[in-house]
Amino acid sequence: MIIVTYRIETAGSIEAMAEKIASDQSTGTFVPVPGETQELKQRVAARVLSIRWLTDAERPSWPEETGRGPIRRADVEIGFPLEAVGTDLSALMTIAVGGIFSIKGFTGLRVVDLKLPEAFRGVYPGPQFGLAGSRRLTGVEGRPIIGTIVKPALGLRPHETAELVGELISSGVDFIKDDEKLMSPAYSPLKERVAAIMPKILDHEQKTGKKVMYAFGISHTDPDEMMRNHDLVLQAGGNCAVININSIGMGAMAFLRKRSGLVLHAHRNGWDVLTRHPGIGLDFRVWQQFWRLLGVDQFQINGIGVKYWEPDDSFVRSFEAVTTPLFEESDCALPVAGSGQWGGQAPETYRRTGRTTDLLYLCGGGIVSHPGGPAAGVRAVTQAWEAAVADIPLETYARDHPELAASLQKFGGKGE
Amino acid sequence: MIIVTYRIETAGSIEAMAEKIASDQSTGTFVPVPGETQELKQRVAARVLSIRWLTDAERPSWPEETGRGPIRRADVEIGFPLEAVGTDLSALMTIAVGGIFSIKGFTGLRVVDLKLPEAFRGVYPGPQFGLAGSRRLTGVEGRPIIGTIVKPALGLRPHETAELVGELISSGVDFIKDDEKLMSPAYSPLKERVAAIMPKILDHEQKTGKKVMYAFGISHTDPDEMMRNHDLVLQAGGNCAVININSIGMGAMAFLRKRSGLVLHAHRNGWDVLTRHPGIGLDFRVWQQFWRLLGVDQFQINGIGVKYWEPDDSFVRSFEAVTTPLFEESDCALPVAGSGQWGGQAPETYRRTGRTTDLLYLCGGGIVSHPGGPAAGVRAVTQAWEAAVADIPLETYARDHPELAASLQKFGGKGE
Repeated sequence: MIIVTYRIETAGSIEAMAEKIASDQSTGTFVPVPGETQELKQRVAARVLSIRWLTDAERPSWPEETGRGPIRRADVEIGFPLEAVGTDLSALMTIAVGGIFSIKGFTGLRVVDLKLPEAFRGVYPGPQFGLAGSRRLTGVEGRPIIGTIVKPALGLRPHETAELVGELISSGVDFIKDDEKLMSPAYSPLKERVAAIMPKILDHEQKTGKKVMYAFGISHTDPDEMMRNHDLVLQAGGNCAVININSIGMGAMAFLRKRSGLVLHAHRNGWDVLTRHPGIGLDFRVWQQFWRLLGVDQFQINGIGVKYWEPDDSFVRSFEAVTTPLFEESDCALPVAGSGQWGGQAPETYRRTGRTTDLLYLCGGGIVSHPGGPAAGVRAVTQAWEAAVADIPLETYARDHPELAASLQKFGGKGE
Repeated sequence: MIIVTYRIETAGSIEAMAEKIASDQSTGTFVPVPGETQELKQRVAARVLSIRWLTDAERPSWPEETGRGPIRRADVEIGFPLEAVGTDLSALMTIAVGGIFSIKGFTGLRVVDLKLPEAFRGVYPGPQFGLAGSRRLTGVEGRPIIGTIVKPALGLRPHETAELVGELISSGVDFIKDDEKLMSPAYSPLKERVAAIMPKILDHEQKTGKKVMYAFGISHTDPDEMMRNHDLVLQAGGNCAVININSIGMGAMAFLRKRSGLVLHAHRNGWDVLTRHPGIGLDFRVWQQFWRLLGVDQFQINGIGVKYWEPDDSFVRSFEAVTTPLFEESDCALPVAGSGQWGGQAPETYRRTGRTTDLLYLCGGGIVSHPGGPAAGVRAVTQAWEAAVADIPLETYARDHPELAASLQKFGGKGE
């Protein structure tokens, strides 16, 4: 049985609305029809398993639905028989998630948990690389993988990008990525970008033994085209790609993963609209399960003190979500903390995510705009993580770590 | 230039937030970085084109973002240079839609319009069948194509479904579909369902010359598997499929359309969460453009007096949206009015959608639960449309049309 928890908000009856989800999403219809027997219903009908009452809502999440009385809230567990849904994720999405938001009578509705049964074990490939593969390919152990982003987001020609990338490579950074908004526009076709950047990566590897992981933006609406992009990167010796998972969709992700030789770095743009209103949509812990089963290796989940709307608590919960096994350890994704990150957030990130260094720590301006240049920026971030792990305040550690000191001086108003 | 209209809601400055979208979604970053020159910026930077002020909001759409002052609203047009985005729809989705909802400082944000430039003409295949193909394949002219749905939604074995379908075929209905929640579960594998149903469709065609269009649920997370489902239907002589477009995603839709020989009937489950809150998300008129370019032939858009949350006005706007050419007449989708429909909504549907009969009118219980059986149900719906087109009140027309009369008596509390 697939168990889904819905946070229901209604001016009507919680019990009736819970039953309505169960009925609408399995056997129900608006009038009884011939052939609809009890036996049939019982075999495939969804069932309300439990109701946990919450405090009333102050106001309705969906403004068009206003009742006169109090607005009740509850977390309702509904069980969907495996026989009715099967293990196809698009079927699960349609039955347990897709259909519910059209139901009348709610003033808010949010999917807050999803428990998949054992029958899903082994059906999907999951991450091909994940934490272990990302560590192996970057050669980084015992500290976070440190990454940066090529800026500006849009507008550099391939040779200009490659020039910046050259500087970033020699900074000692472990990971570099295209901005998620950069795929293959006319001024920077992926083919030319790969051709300009990969020789620098390989040359550096040749000289130092260190291969920087570069994530190229290969997303494309046409999966055949996306595979050609994938092949371009792989054949040039690249090992990673940024995927805009929401824009391409679940099917294209499944298609890619079946054929992929690259680490798949997921950018979740488009997700915020599904989750930013706390009374509507779905929690990241639900949504990420789909994408991890489909094969996301590295999952961008914001970070502490980000420049976006997401509160720190939500990031912490996301971090826990992607690192909690669904069926086995290997189905976890490597969490990627990013957005407005420099070294300053290292102590709190470390403290609040179970004192682990198993993450990719992504700093854009935080590395590139360091007063001493990118190499000093990378050293500053590394020093911040050393301090965090050793429980030494950044200010103290900065006394004999000048790059961290410079970083604190420049970015100190942000983050910690 | 691609022009996107955003409905902005903020306790801060509308102008500043408009500029923030333009900057964040093209060249911007949180600190100035080396290499970011004016020349680059100007070539690919998005620009605020116009601001149209609206009345203040009474309360913030996103409750976490509360300012002290008034909450300003405006419709802001932003132009994205084609050079920065290209014509890839997943790039457009990421740049113009996906990224915006993470921006801090809004209390609400909705994409309300999208104008694609001529460069998009001919890039995407669009509908293969649409209105003309649907009419040709069903042989229906001069009135709406009348459809019904097999109920219960889930739980019938293939032979049970086929038995019901047999009845529905002989009712004279033009179109029958699987419930969108039915794909290929263990109790009703698509292969067996096709094998049980198609002989009845073909037998009826042999005898009467009328081929009922049956839409089978072929959606699957794996596009290769979905193509196998597609081929099963096509090889058995079928001509239509229900696609859960949101669950499979844009890439899988593009993949399918390139290879499809079937009419693609889109069910939009999952869409409601993107649009139900009027201050958040995106209007259907924006969202449907993507799917029509990708090849949706028939688009489910609710109807008048539906059992779901959507108000009638919203349906009317959706109807207009899918029937307004993007580049040419042939890129329109056939609108499908469904949910709680019987004959009762025909007059208002006709009156409010430009007095056209170019639609698929989908009645579930409204046909199947007619007191005289499905055949009487189909006749009742046909009569309701005759009355609507002739501007005769249903009650008047029912005087010498007993099936309509029975329908009015049974369902008269609903709809008109």
